[in-house]
Amino acid sequence: MIALSNYVGGSWNAGSGDAKSLHNPATEEILGEVRPGGVDFAAALHHAREKGGPALRAMTFGERAAMLKALSKKLHEHRDELIEISGSNGGNTRGDAKFDLDGATGTLAWYAQLGAGYGDRRHLADGEGAQLGRTARFWGQHILTTRPGVAVHINAFNFPAWGMGEKMACALLAGVPVVEKAGTPSALLAYRIAQLVVESGIVPEGAFQFIGGSITGMLDLLGPMDTVAFTGSAVTAALIRGNKNLIARNVRINLEADSINSAILGPDAEEGGDTLEQFLGNVTVDMTQKAGQKCTAVRRIFVPEAMVGMVAEALVERLRSTKIGAPLEAETRMGPVASAAQLRDVRAGIDRLTEVAEVLTGGSAPMSGPGYFVAPTLLRAKDPAAPVLHELEVFGPCATIVPYSGKVEEVVDLCNRGGGGLVASAYSDDRKFLEPLVHGIAPWHGRVWVGSEKTHGQALGPGAVLPATIHGGPGRAGGGEELGGLRGLMPYMQRTAIQGDRAIIGRAFGDETNP
Amino acid sequence: MIALSNYVGGSWNAGSGDAKSLHNPATEEILGEVRPGGVDFAAALHHAREKGGPALRAMTFGERAAMLKALSKKLHEHRDELIEISGSNGGNTRGDAKFDLDGATGTLAWYAQLGAGYGDRRHLADGEGAQLGRTARFWGQHILTTRPGVAVHINAFNFPAWGMGEKMACALLAGVPVVEKAGTPSALLAYRIAQLVVESGIVPEGAFQFIGGSITGMLDLLGPMDTVAFTGSAVTAALIRGNKNLIARNVRINLEADSINSAILGPDAEEGGDTLEQFLGNVTVDMTQKAGQKCTAVRRIFVPEAMVGMVAEALVERLRSTKIGAPLEAETRMGPVASAAQLRDVRAGIDRLTEVAEVLTGGSAPMSGPGYFVAPTLLRAKDPAAPVLHELEVFGPCATIVPYSGKVEEVVDLCNRGGGGLVASAYSDDRKFLEPLVHGIAPWHGRVWVGSEKTHGQALGPGAVLPATIHGGPGRAGGGEELGGLRGLMPYMQRTAIQGDRAIIGRAFGDETNP
Repeated sequence: MIALSNYVGGSWNAGSGDAKSLHNPATEEILGEVRPGGVDFAAALHHAREKGGPALRAMTFGERAAMLKALSKKLHEHRDELIEISGSNGGNTRGDAKFDLDGATGTLAWYAQLGAGYGDRRHLADGEGAQLGRTARFWGQHILTTRPGVAVHINAFNFPAWGMGEKMACALLAGVPVVEKAGTPSALLAYRIAQLVVESGIVPEGAFQFIGGSITGMLDLLGPMDTVAFTGSAVTAALIRGNKNLIARNVRINLEADSINSAILGPDAEEGGDTLEQFLGNVTVDMTQKAGQKCTAVRRIFVPEAMVGMVAEALVERLRSTKIGAPLEAETRMGPVASAAQLRDVRAGIDRLTEVAEVLTGGSAPMSGPGYFVAPTLLRAKDPAAPVLHELEVFGPCATIVPYSGKVEEVVDLCNRGGGGLVASAYSDDRKFLEPLVHGIAPWHGRVWVGSEKTHGQALGPGAVLPATIHGGPGRAGGGEELGGLRGLMPYMQRTAIQGDRAIIGRAFGDETNP
Repeated sequence: MIALSNYVGGSWNAGSGDAKSLHNPATEEILGEVRPGGVDFAAALHHAREKGGPALRAMTFGERAAMLKALSKKLHEHRDELIEISGSNGGNTRGDAKFDLDGATGTLAWYAQLGAGYGDRRHLADGEGAQLGRTARFWGQHILTTRPGVAVHINAFNFPAWGMGEKMACALLAGVPVVEKAGTPSALLAYRIAQLVVESGIVPEGAFQFIGGSITGMLDLLGPMDTVAFTGSAVTAALIRGNKNLIARNVRINLEADSINSAILGPDAEEGGDTLEQFLGNVTVDMTQKAGQKCTAVRRIFVPEAMVGMVAEALVERLRSTKIGAPLEAETRMGPVASAAQLRDVRAGIDRLTEVAEVLTGGSAPMSGPGYFVAPTLLRAKDPAAPVLHELEVFGPCATIVPYSGKVEEVVDLCNRGGGGLVASAYSDDRKFLEPLVHGIAPWHGRVWVGSEKTHGQALGPGAVLPATIHGGPGRAGGGEELGGLRGLMPYMQRTAIQGDRAIIGRAFGDETNP
């Protein structure tokens, strides 16, 4: 059994307090334990501020980019070992594990490439300079500088590698030291990654710290130059936003929370056509990949009434043929959910949905044998307007077909009842349908994915989070923004308008030193 | 006496509850009254959402820009009348009144020009498109769309015209209806402007509403597409950030609060030189303009020890020669502070500063006669590290000289003790001093103003807020951002990544439709 340690203040320590067990969710076997207490938060922050921050800020963007590249390479070298841990502690199939791990290394490598383009700079120009006075002498230039604080990253259990990797990539490239808190149920993978990061010596001392247990007390010690980035439930997100110290000291907060994501089938999709085929394929992947435990997974499937029977039949067939079982077996396509608590929540969520929807396949009944398995569950809404459909995120292999008339204004209204989401996908080749749809739902979503004939076989599905485009969404989804190229560095940088003599400002801070 | 009305739901109503008197701060005469209650907040929001929002969103950027231009013109036509109100209810000199009014009309006109450039568009492209897949077929483009919500603007008393004008310009151009709350002590000017806006018919019904009394209850009714923008004290800002409904529903908040702004004199400045002259001139203006009631006014004046005597003497001479009196008299250069409460706070603040600083001129003693007058007060710190110097915003004609060694790292440290500010100004022609100074203080400031020989006579002082550059700052300053060109529209728009077939995405949402 592995006893998790925290890496804080330059050394590993075991934590204290009552141990929490970490399980193999496929067998319920205990694999490890974590003790929530015993971390000196003030000392950890001091270490980050006094050691890690200055070391990172002394590096150029190019040097930090090289660091990310080396980290990506280091983790990739351990891919096979990490897949095994991901399968045993996370319940991930080999495909799921690779999705998580390659997401991490890919994002680190992508930001390494982005950062390399800024070479020997330590600040960035933000936009073009502007004449401020009657003559061009008095000039303004916005710049982005590194905040001399700490990035506290509270990661979710579902993507121990990718979630931590994407947050680290942005903060470290910006020059801000990180404290990474692992999602407890799947913490063994995050712990092993943390060991690799520390052992490698790639990141300067103090720039990377790792906490397996509780981090709540640290929030009370943060200041105006610090950033909290959180991925998890809307309930916890609201607790973070309501933290008195974070409010009083105006600590920056970037939240990614619940999202009742949508897939919208256009009325023009034809049976046998590439657009419908993509829709069916993506919905099936979204429901079963990671056992539906993706913040971007589809929960509401909007289908024109006339096509509901056909779509339901096709999806049920695909879901029923999904091979469920021991995660690391080569032929397994779906594993268990990550923990007993998740199993309980998912089953309770399915029960709530069945109050307003009919079960087409799956359901909340327990599956035979040990492990936290749930059958892929497809429902069909009886009343498309039932609030629970649009407000409850069931974080497992579960989604509901919501029939609509085929009219764009109707599906825009239904989709936006989600109250703010990470992603909605639309499948159509009719621009008269697509354009008002995208404009209607865009203000409520961080990302809109459009599937059409030509994207078939060319596009990663809507469930994938790509470094070039933002990840986040308004309202229920938390109101934050991650990734999206340089946009992902913004939580860790300060935008400042520099005003003065153009000859000084332009040369020292403007376009002459930046692309 | 004028009884203020609220303009909500398409009609004027008088409010209810105990009346609060509005004074002439130079004479203490009662000029008007406002009743805090009686506004149906739900109906006001409904009106904005159902009438104003759809009307604005149906307009193009070009049409909204034309609306701002017409508003600017309309208000400018009433400039003389508004100057009189600003002088009587606000205690503003003619110069102060013009600063406020021309700030409003200038910002409206500036955003009109910016918006006109987007012509017949209703959304904006955000950055360039990006290839997302192995081929260029799968494409991503970020767009900005109008949030279908309401902008609630809580304005400060010090700039009834400019403050309201800049917030309105950004929200209306973005297509979001506004509810404008006036700062109470100077509400007569805001009220008259509201009358002009409504009477003019320039803004669609429901897109502009005005509240003279309390707006607190409205915050409990806002949702994820709404935005609260506030200018005022850090204490009230923290109350807004802590509002349970705003937290639970992820309402967007943009705050501008206290700021202990700095002016930093470089050790290279020479007596009689243009750089020193600018420094002395700007500090004097900042201390006396609007009787020091500017969120951007200097509070801490960092001067190399060897130059403190000379600087103190020059500033004292200028401050003592400032003509104080009836605001609207042509020769008056400084009027009273805005209210009895402000007078009390400023006098108490000066008393707190005198615990750690010596009074060089002015002080907290009452001035003779009626009115809320305070003498321009210059202090000299005994201990540059005394916390009160860096943490207390005395919102009146008061600032403290803080001696430093002349070393850049020392003044960076002292300046940043402000805990996050709106603006710091630096006066030097030595790039070896300026560059590390700007980099050192930038992360803690929304704006850094650099004065040098060549800017003399060319540059508006650091106290002026310009539409092309951002206004806001981290930490104590609230953590918000206003203005800065298109950046000022961001609180009212949603950024969304659109992904799909390049042929569809690029044409419908990308560069082909946007500059």
